[in-house]
Amino acid sequence: MKKSAVCLLSGGLDSTTCLAYALREGFACYALSFDYGQRHRFELQAAQRVAARLGATDHRVLQLDLRAFGGSSLTSDEAVPKDRPTEAMSHGIPSTYVPARNTIFLSLALAWAEVLGAEDIFIGVNALDYSGYPDCRPEFIEAFTRMANLATRAGVEGTSKLTIHTPLLRLTKGEITKLAAELNIDFSITHTCYDPDARGRACGHCDACQLRLKGFAEAGLADTAPYQS
Amino acid sequence: MKKSAVCLLSGGLDSTTCLAYALREGFACYALSFDYGQRHRFELQAAQRVAARLGATDHRVLQLDLRAFGGSSLTSDEAVPKDRPTEAMSHGIPSTYVPARNTIFLSLALAWAEVLGAEDIFIGVNALDYSGYPDCRPEFIEAFTRMANLATRAGVEGTSKLTIHTPLLRLTKGEITKLAAELNIDFSITHTCYDPDARGRACGHCDACQLRLKGFAEAGLADTAPYQS
Repeated sequence: MKKSAVCLLSGGLDSTTCLAYALREGFACYALSFDYGQRHRFELQAAQRVAARLGATDHRVLQLDLRAFGGSSLTSDEAVPKDRPTEAMSHGIPSTYVPARNTIFLSLALAWAEVLGAEDIFIGVNALDYSGYPDCRPEFIEAFTRMANLATRAGVEGTSKLTIHTPLLRLTKGEITKLAAELNIDFSITHTCYDPDARGRACGHCDACQLRLKGFAEAGLADTAPYQS
Repeated sequence: MKKSAVCLLSGGLDSTTCLAYALREGFACYALSFDYGQRHRFELQAAQRVAARLGATDHRVLQLDLRAFGGSSLTSDEAVPKDRPTEAMSHGIPSTYVPARNTIFLSLALAWAEVLGAEDIFIGVNALDYSGYPDCRPEFIEAFTRMANLATRAGVEGTSKLTIHTPLLRLTKGEITKLAAELNIDFSITHTCYDPDARGRACGHCDACQLRLKGFAEAGLADTAPYQS
């Protein structure tokens, strides 16, 4: 029987690549997305398309109103930054950072994993070409794993072997894009942009779009997702 | 100016005592409760009464549907255990354990703390007279603190000084009840029972009731909360 894994899935290219990777590794994948007060619905629609197309065993979308706390341009109506040089993204933490987001998402993945009896969680974080988010760093993932192995029934019984897989952690955006192509991902069904138009077309200028386009440029590939002209 | 703290508040006697303790320590308290698919509404009503009566600076109730994952009698309609000897509660993990609950609650408290600029979180966990939950153990709290100090903006800047306060961690139920009395808590406004009747009166037989009644017996005090006769 296949081992089960919980796979965090936003519907962007990184988490889609991470899910495809977990499936290739032979896991039965339980995809988990969050309706956490994002600025738009296109991301969740992409997650649903991706989970169905790639063949996740199950896909759940958990409601979680992070707008209740505020603190991020991603969960408010303020403008997201545009046309920041990607080098600047490695310094400082942008307004799109959602406080403790990966901690919260991994905690909820842990809950589902415990119910499923799964010992594996996949998250598509990337520490190299990233937006300067604290909770994408390897030392954070290590500390979370240690905590998680004490937090559950198996932790009490001393039999906990939870692993958090971060296959994209040390890849460049170009390498991720190449991996996505190798895994036969249909780029057009993923959604990355923080600030799409009413038809869901990407802006091409927010941090997320710029990092995505940098990846395609480095990989020498064409992005088939829709952009505003 | 007072330091701010996020205080997890279920509306039970332990979390109420913990909040009163934080207030006595001089913190401006931001109480946080969760509507996570509990079996009844009396707990959240108690949390609202307690936050108002004790003088929390703010109180938020976050929606979070943990029923989506299952795995606990507390978030389902199955029967909760009754009349278990309290000694038995120290062995094994009961069906009322909600997978990763404290990990999830502390993660959300961390998010609010980061938005508030607060460096202190209070949680009324107790490792001595407890129901055998893995996420009430001191080693879990320590590992969570270490992870949390890497998870935030301050963690990247190396200035994170997050403390998770667990003033009840090493107290017996009797000592907690005495502390509650010393802090002038009106026992009648708190709610502990897992399985109240339609009027919100406690059953007196579930694990939570039994531990509460044990505390009152040890403290030589009378519980003024309503019980089914």
